[in-house]
Amino acid sequence: MPQQPDVSVSGALAHLVATSSWQDVAAQSHQAKRSILNFFATALGSSNDPAVTSALQVLAPFSGSHTSSVIGRSERLDALGAGFVNAISANLLDYDDTHLDTIIHPSAPVAAPVLALAQARSISGRDVLTAFILGVEVECRIGNAVSPGHYARGWHITSTCGVFGAAAACAKLLGLAEDGVANAIGIAASQSAGIVENLSSAAKNVSVGNAARNGLFSALLSEGGYAASARAIEGPLGWARAMGDQPDLEVLLGGLGKSWEIAKNTYKPYPAGIVFHAVIDACFKLRAQLEGAVDDIVSVTLQGSPLLLARGDRPVITERDARVSIHHSVACVLLCGAAGVREFSAAVVFQPEVVRLREKVRAELDTSLPDGAARVSIRIRSGKILSEEIMSARGSLANPLSDADIETKLRDCARSGEAKCDPERLIEAVWRLETLPDIAPLVSSSSGRPS
Amino acid sequence: MPQQPDVSVSGALAHLVATSSWQDVAAQSHQAKRSILNFFATALGSSNDPAVTSALQVLAPFSGSHTSSVIGRSERLDALGAGFVNAISANLLDYDDTHLDTIIHPSAPVAAPVLALAQARSISGRDVLTAFILGVEVECRIGNAVSPGHYARGWHITSTCGVFGAAAACAKLLGLAEDGVANAIGIAASQSAGIVENLSSAAKNVSVGNAARNGLFSALLSEGGYAASARAIEGPLGWARAMGDQPDLEVLLGGLGKSWEIAKNTYKPYPAGIVFHAVIDACFKLRAQLEGAVDDIVSVTLQGSPLLLARGDRPVITERDARVSIHHSVACVLLCGAAGVREFSAAVVFQPEVVRLREKVRAELDTSLPDGAARVSIRIRSGKILSEEIMSARGSLANPLSDADIETKLRDCARSGEAKCDPERLIEAVWRLETLPDIAPLVSSSSGRPS
Repeated sequence: MPQQPDVSVSGALAHLVATSSWQDVAAQSHQAKRSILNFFATALGSSNDPAVTSALQVLAPFSGSHTSSVIGRSERLDALGAGFVNAISANLLDYDDTHLDTIIHPSAPVAAPVLALAQARSISGRDVLTAFILGVEVECRIGNAVSPGHYARGWHITSTCGVFGAAAACAKLLGLAEDGVANAIGIAASQSAGIVENLSSAAKNVSVGNAARNGLFSALLSEGGYAASARAIEGPLGWARAMGDQPDLEVLLGGLGKSWEIAKNTYKPYPAGIVFHAVIDACFKLRAQLEGAVDDIVSVTLQGSPLLLARGDRPVITERDARVSIHHSVACVLLCGAAGVREFSAAVVFQPEVVRLREKVRAELDTSLPDGAARVSIRIRSGKILSEEIMSARGSLANPLSDADIETKLRDCARSGEAKCDPERLIEAVWRLETLPDIAPLVSSSSGRPS
Repeated sequence: MPQQPDVSVSGALAHLVATSSWQDVAAQSHQAKRSILNFFATALGSSNDPAVTSALQVLAPFSGSHTSSVIGRSERLDALGAGFVNAISANLLDYDDTHLDTIIHPSAPVAAPVLALAQARSISGRDVLTAFILGVEVECRIGNAVSPGHYARGWHITSTCGVFGAAAACAKLLGLAEDGVANAIGIAASQSAGIVENLSSAAKNVSVGNAARNGLFSALLSEGGYAASARAIEGPLGWARAMGDQPDLEVLLGGLGKSWEIAKNTYKPYPAGIVFHAVIDACFKLRAQLEGAVDDIVSVTLQGSPLLLARGDRPVITERDARVSIHHSVACVLLCGAAGVREFSAAVVFQPEVVRLREKVRAELDTSLPDGAARVSIRIRSGKILSEEIMSARGSLANPLSDADIETKLRDCARSGEAKCDPERLIEAVWRLETLPDIAPLVSSSSGRPS
C-alpha cells in the first residue's frame, strides 16, 4: 500500500475495531490469555511496591464509586483510577510483556483499563478478549509505523502508543460505532505523552498509568460526543509529525485484520529489560563454567547490538537503574546465580561485592550481533577467557516461555509481591476466559475477594 | 548566561517557586488579578457550552468528594475534575488571555487547578496570587525557550507548557519544598501533550483540560513521594528534545525572579485568535468607510506576517474553524459590525451572506508587517480601493484593555453564557484578592453560590 493521503489512520483502525467480532479474533485468544496471565503476574508482583501504594493514596480522595479492583490489594477505585494504578503495577519492574519490533510493553496500558471497565460493567470474557486483542493491534501498529526513531528520540513508546490501544479497546468495550472508535483514537493523540529521560524515576509510572487511564477517558469522552480530527495521527500538524516521525502508513495499515501483532508478544523470565535477557542467559552458562571462582574474575566484556548498548550501558545509581543495566545483569547472575525480583531490588543492588563486580563489566559494540543477542566474555586471573554467545534468549519469540512457565511466574510474583490474591482461581479463570459471562469475579479474585 | 549543562532546569525553576514569597511577587499582583478576572469571564461565557456539559457528565461518576466549583454552574467536582472542566470552559472560545511571545493562553491551565485546589483547602487569596504568578512564570519561560519551533511543529503550546505552570503553581500551594517542586515540574514533563491538528475539534479541550488536571496531579504525586529526572525538561532524551526542540536555556533561566512574564499578558476584546485582532480592528474602520455598501465589495485582500497566515488562512467548515479564520473575522465585522461571541457562533458562521463574503477574502504574505499587525484592502464595485492598516490591535500590549473593559467583558460573558454567577460580587472580590483569608467564598460566587 503506498502512502495514501486520502486514508484517515484513525478511521481505518476504527473500521477494524468496530467491525471485528469474536470469530475474527478467536484464533489469537490463546496468546491473549497468555498476555493477560502475564499481566496479572507482574501486577501482583508489584502490588505492594511503595510506588503503587503512593499512587493509590494520591488517587483515593479523587475516586468516584469503587467499582474496580486494585490488583493484589483490598482497596478499590473507580475504573479510571484502577486503570491507572494497575498499569503502574504491571509495568513497574520491567517484567511485563514485550512486542519486540517496537519494545512496547503491550498489556499494561491496554489490559488495565479494559479489565477495570469490564469489571465495573460486568462484561463477558469473550468481549474482553476481543477488545484486548484489538487494542494491542492498534497500539503496536502505530508503534511499528514510527519505530525505531520514536523511542530513540526520547518517547517512552509503551506510554505514547499505549494510550491509543487503551482508547481503541475501551471504545470497543463500550460498543461505540466506527466513528466513535475513530474519535476515541483521535482524542488519544492529544493525550499521548511520556519521555525516556524520566524512565529511571517514578515519573515513568505516571506516563504508563496515564496511557491506561487516558485511553479509557478518550473512549468515555467519545461516547459523550467529543470528536477529533480524522488526521490526528498522520496529519501535517498531527501526532506522528509533532513527535518527529514520518509515519509509515504502509506498515500501519497494510494487512489490517489479516496479521495480528499479539502473535508476536513475548514474556520475560527475568524482571529486567528484555534486551538484556541474552546477557543473563549467557551469564548463567558462564557461572556454571566458573565453578564458584567468581573472585577470580578480572574483567567482563559484553558485546551486543547498538540497541543493547543504548538501553543498558549505564551507571547504576538507583535501584531502577539496575533493572536497565547490563552491568548489573552480569553481576547479579554471576554472584547470586539468580535473576529474579530480589536480584534487582535494593537488597542486592547495593551489596559491595555486587557493586565491585559491576565495575568490572565493559560493554562493546558488535554490529554483527542482532538485537536480542549477546556475547559475554570473562577474563579470569589465570588469563583464561570464558565466553558464551546467546542468539535466542529464553522468553524470545524463538524460545518462548511455556504456558506452565507463565503460570509459575504468576505464582512466584503473587508470593514475592505478598499480594492479596487467589492465584489458582485466577489462573484457572483466565484459561477459560471466553466462557465467562461476566468477568467481574475473575478480576475480584486478583485482589483476593471471592467476587 | 551560556548553555549550562550543569544546571537542572526544573531545579532552577523550583528554586524560584519555592523561595518566592508574596513580597517578591506583589508588584505583579494587579496584572494577576486582571488575568484571573479575564479567566472567570471566559469560563463564564462558555459555562453552558455542550463541550463543557459533556465533559462534566463524563467526569461526574469519576469524581471524589465535591470540593470545587464548576464555574458558572451549580455542579461541583473534586479538584482534579473541576480543574479539568474549568480550564476547558476558560479556553473554549479562544477568548482567554495571551502571552504574545509564545501564543500561550496562560491562565486557563494554571488558574483552573489553582482555584479548584485552593477552594478545596481554604487557601488565602495572597497564597493563590503568589502561586498563580509563579505558575505563569514557569509556563511561559518554558514556552519562550522552545518558541517558535514548538508550536510550528504541531504542539499546542497552551497544553504542552500549561501543565508545567499548573504543576509549579499547585506545588507552591501545597507548600512543597524545593525538591518537591522540582519533582512536580519533572513529572509534568511526562504528562505534557496536545497537538495542533486537533485544534478544530473537541479533542483540543482534552489537552487543555489535562494540562490543568495533570499539573495538579503532578504536584499531588510529588507530595506523595514521586520523583522525576532532574533533567526531565532539557536532558538528551527529555521533554524539549523529544518534542523536537533545542531548548534555549538562557531564555529559560536568564533574569529569573527579576523579569516577570505575567507583565506581558494580554486580554482579548474579541473571541477569536489574537493574531486576528488587527484584522478585526481594520475591518471596523473599513465598515465605517463603506457606509453600508457591503454588497459592493468585489474582493478583500488581507496582508500580514507568516504567523497571521499560518494561524488563520483556512477554510471554514465548522464553527470552531471560524474562530481561527481570518476570512470569517473579515466577513462578520463587515456584515454585522460586531465581533462578539455570537458572531463566532453557528448562528452567524453559516449565514449564506457571511459564507459568500468569506469567499471574497484572500490572504497575502507581507513580511514587512510584524506579528499582530494587519493591512486590509477592499476593492469595491466602482474600482475604488479602501485600505486600513493596524499596527497595535486593541487588547495588545501597546493598546491594552482597561480594568473596566475586563469587568465589562466578564459581565457580558456571564450574560451571554447564561452562567450561574454573581458577577458584581466576583469582580469586587477579585480586586481585593490579597486581603481574603480564604478564597472559597470567591470561587463559590463564580457558580452563583453564596459560599
